[in-house]
Amino acid sequence: MLEVVGSIPSQVIPKTTNSFLAWCSALRGFWSSITYKQMRKIYFCGSIRAGRQDVELYGRIIEQLQAYGIVLTEHVANKEIELSEVNLDDKFIHDRDIEWLENCDAVVAEVTQPSLGVGYEIGRAVAMKKRLLCLFRPASGKKLSAMIGGAYDSQSFIVKHYAELDVPQILQEFFSY
Amino acid sequence: MLEVVGSIPSQVIPKTTNSFLAWCSALRGFWSSITYKQMRKIYFCGSIRAGRQDVELYGRIIEQLQAYGIVLTEHVANKEIELSEVNLDDKFIHDRDIEWLENCDAVVAEVTQPSLGVGYEIGRAVAMKKRLLCLFRPASGKKLSAMIGGAYDSQSFIVKHYAELDVPQILQEFFSY
Repeated sequence: MLEVVGSIPSQVIPKTTNSFLAWCSALRGFWSSITYKQMRKIYFCGSIRAGRQDVELYGRIIEQLQAYGIVLTEHVANKEIELSEVNLDDKFIHDRDIEWLENCDAVVAEVTQPSLGVGYEIGRAVAMKKRLLCLFRPASGKKLSAMIGGAYDSQSFIVKHYAELDVPQILQEFFSY
Repeated sequence: MLEVVGSIPSQVIPKTTNSFLAWCSALRGFWSSITYKQMRKIYFCGSIRAGRQDVELYGRIIEQLQAYGIVLTEHVANKEIELSEVNLDDKFIHDRDIEWLENCDAVVAEVTQPSLGVGYEIGRAVAMKKRLLCLFRPASGKKLSAMIGGAYDSQSFIVKHYAELDVPQILQEFFSY
């Protein structure tokens, strides 16, 4: 749906002065479709099978991410995700998600709940040289993996220890490149 | 310690017929040190900060792995690992472990306890085209991530649902390449 590149309908290419406004309108639509296509594609990671304690938080982060681009993995905030994916085998899910990861412009991961899947996605994303933001809540009492904390490089791999109130500011900074 | 290549002590280079046996013995030692150096390097992954419930099992798996090569990450079975690494910063641990991962011949991961670090290591190892064996115990009641289960390809990425008694057979099959 989002991949459709607009084209200028031939009937509105101006033949008379009177059709000039219609032509401008079509041009605007064409331009905005290109802009939309050029929007960031964001891959959001959150725990699924390792624990859904933070699913509502994932939803609120994804809502904010949508101001910065298209979130390819919006389903991570679906409270019924396991029911909705019950007929999908693991290979389908893995290959679909890796394709999204390859196509995304940035990865945002909520890393408070330990999760093999989130770790795996981050590892693959680093190898693909994606820009990453990892969000960890120290107030959870959990300990962040040294493999995530130690991958921080201040440029393409950002790790933030945060409270939920900080999210707008953190996202603004991360996407101001 | 294991990187030391033996040298033939000068005092046993045969000067008389009588020292021939001593020379043969030194040559055998020299040869076996080269062979040892050429043994497989195995990277074992297990949860550290995400939970140490399985640390004793990790120890028993590592013991068996040592019949197949040098286990670079033997410390994963150290019950005091967090104390012993308290003075190491996350970047040091990350960079050291990634260097070991780059240098290893095979990766064996116990993936029952969800862990960001283990997932990250598996993701990086896949990108490095390492041979991987992931071991998951269904009896734990946990659910294996679709990103791990779905990465199975029957060749270089093996996933085994196992009970501890199966480990010797699984390792024998995995290392019979």
